[in-house]
Amino acid sequence: MTTAPGRPLLITMGDAAGIGPEVIVRACVRGDAAGCVVVGDLDVMRRAIALRPEWAMPVAVLDEPGDVAAVPAGTLPLLVPDGLPARLVDAGWGQVDARCGAAAARCIEAAVAWVRGGQAAGLVTAPIHKEALSAAGIGYPGHTEMLRALAAEPGHAPPPVRMMLANTELRVVLVTIHVSLRRALDLIDVDSVLQTIRITDAALRRQGLARPRLAVAGLNPHAGEGGLFGDEELSIIAPAIASACAEGIDARGPYAPDTVFMRARDAAGHLGEFDAVVAMTHDHGLIPVKYLGVDDGVNVTLGLPFVRTSPDHGTAFDIAGRGVASERSLVSAIRMARTLRGV
Amino acid sequence: MTTAPGRPLLITMGDAAGIGPEVIVRACVRGDAAGCVVVGDLDVMRRAIALRPEWAMPVAVLDEPGDVAAVPAGTLPLLVPDGLPARLVDAGWGQVDARCGAAAARCIEAAVAWVRGGQAAGLVTAPIHKEALSAAGIGYPGHTEMLRALAAEPGHAPPPVRMMLANTELRVVLVTIHVSLRRALDLIDVDSVLQTIRITDAALRRQGLARPRLAVAGLNPHAGEGGLFGDEELSIIAPAIASACAEGIDARGPYAPDTVFMRARDAAGHLGEFDAVVAMTHDHGLIPVKYLGVDDGVNVTLGLPFVRTSPDHGTAFDIAGRGVASERSLVSAIRMARTLRGV
Repeated sequence: MTTAPGRPLLITMGDAAGIGPEVIVRACVRGDAAGCVVVGDLDVMRRAIALRPEWAMPVAVLDEPGDVAAVPAGTLPLLVPDGLPARLVDAGWGQVDARCGAAAARCIEAAVAWVRGGQAAGLVTAPIHKEALSAAGIGYPGHTEMLRALAAEPGHAPPPVRMMLANTELRVVLVTIHVSLRRALDLIDVDSVLQTIRITDAALRRQGLARPRLAVAGLNPHAGEGGLFGDEELSIIAPAIASACAEGIDARGPYAPDTVFMRARDAAGHLGEFDAVVAMTHDHGLIPVKYLGVDDGVNVTLGLPFVRTSPDHGTAFDIAGRGVASERSLVSAIRMARTLRGV
Repeated sequence: MTTAPGRPLLITMGDAAGIGPEVIVRACVRGDAAGCVVVGDLDVMRRAIALRPEWAMPVAVLDEPGDVAAVPAGTLPLLVPDGLPARLVDAGWGQVDARCGAAAARCIEAAVAWVRGGQAAGLVTAPIHKEALSAAGIGYPGHTEMLRALAAEPGHAPPPVRMMLANTELRVVLVTIHVSLRRALDLIDVDSVLQTIRITDAALRRQGLARPRLAVAGLNPHAGEGGLFGDEELSIIAPAIASACAEGIDARGPYAPDTVFMRARDAAGHLGEFDAVVAMTHDHGLIPVKYLGVDDGVNVTLGLPFVRTSPDHGTAFDIAGRGVASERSLVSAIRMARTLRGV
């Protein structure tokens, strides 16, 4: 799939009680969401606009994504999906509310339908709250799992997808995500590691890297120290790397988890040794990506048949509705989505 | 135990084939090891001194630690333990060698004996190589375990100890260390977490913090997301925190592993929320400590009846013998040892 110029990116509003609506408004006010259309609830977006007087702007409710071309600058273009719960703004800021969970899910479903129908170029998703989703009876722990299910072709299994987290100095792709650490250990096998390496390599090639340099982190302390501290490196990770190399992928490792991210870090005065790190667990990968702050972090779902990025922060219920949340990560996610060409 | 002025710190040379000897020499040349005595092999230390012409200095072989008072500046003071293997310098740079493993262990044993005998104020240990130790038949995976055994009083169990890693912006104390991740999951229980919180609190109070603010990291993604991704937070970590609080310790959490280290980071423009983070696994804790580099990192063993610090890097066999390794982490370890008063 290529992204035809002119088709907009869709930004889903996320959980209405979180900071999603206000960071979207903030990005629109700054002109950083040009060519994007928000998918959400009219009253929720108006409530966010009203948080600060300098954010005042009209909302244009569109019938379909392509209508954005006729929306003047300084106006927030909005698509309102069918079937949103009524009176969402009755749910207080920062509260887990089943209506907000249901609305967030409905916006994602509708946005995926527009993207898959060819009317939009890709998705940027504002944060959802897992407990609100769960309260609404939505069985997915997060965006990634839900998008994967929505991406399945009728009669086919959902595609294998992986979560990539990227900021200005590090890219990390995760073998396992939203499961207990104990369960993650059971899910790590040669297939899951090899699949992650392949998806990472393909995605970075599509971003323009001719031969991405991939580091594969170990699972155990010191990458198992030659088998003294666990054998997954010897029995699972090294064979997966060998298979990837046989396919022409520049995958190296397994490297000790505690130093591979430092080695990959690409920043002023520190040239990164790798273009991305494949990490075995959610927190091995996300601890280093978030360590210096989440303001510039972007979450990218690799392996979907469409582009999807999101900011690398949550609903931040503790500050929602105060008009103080930073839009930087959302803007980074919009920029990243523009550079991706999808699969 | 208080550290009487005048008693020296002992610096063990570590694995003779690694960068330990040369970073020790470098710290001595710069005057950063004043008042310290090296515990090691004469030929190994002379070989390190010879790596760079500007490092030339005489070695004074002492009979006991207190003799350092008579050693002139610009001279490297050395204690040579009985029982070192002969001709250690025949082992090549950067090679795993059983003789180097045996020598490294012997230096540690001898240094502990001097410290426990009251002749030295504490230990700073240069890096050892676990495979070399293993090749020498030494059954400890690292310094921490070996020192714990050496610290046991006759007829008593070894004291509970914990590894703390600290740099200029973060302190992390680990519940589990040199075991497979699978085994670590089995070792995390209310007692091991509570013990870690207590040891951390006591150590930071000894360093002068009146009421240390301790963050306790969760084990699972999102700290278990209320039980959706694992129950160790609910069944183990939260009860341990509650017990610690009941003892008057300011322990909070469990917090999501992927953001707690970011929150604790204390750096220019970012005031840390906590004085230390208790982490459940080796790599949850060490990934953030090492992310910005290991040059200023220090490893401190908490809970021993004597002071022990070490640099936060390994033997670096790939660059050993080239005279290029940085002495900064060793110097940080020496400074940290001077500020600690032991238990």
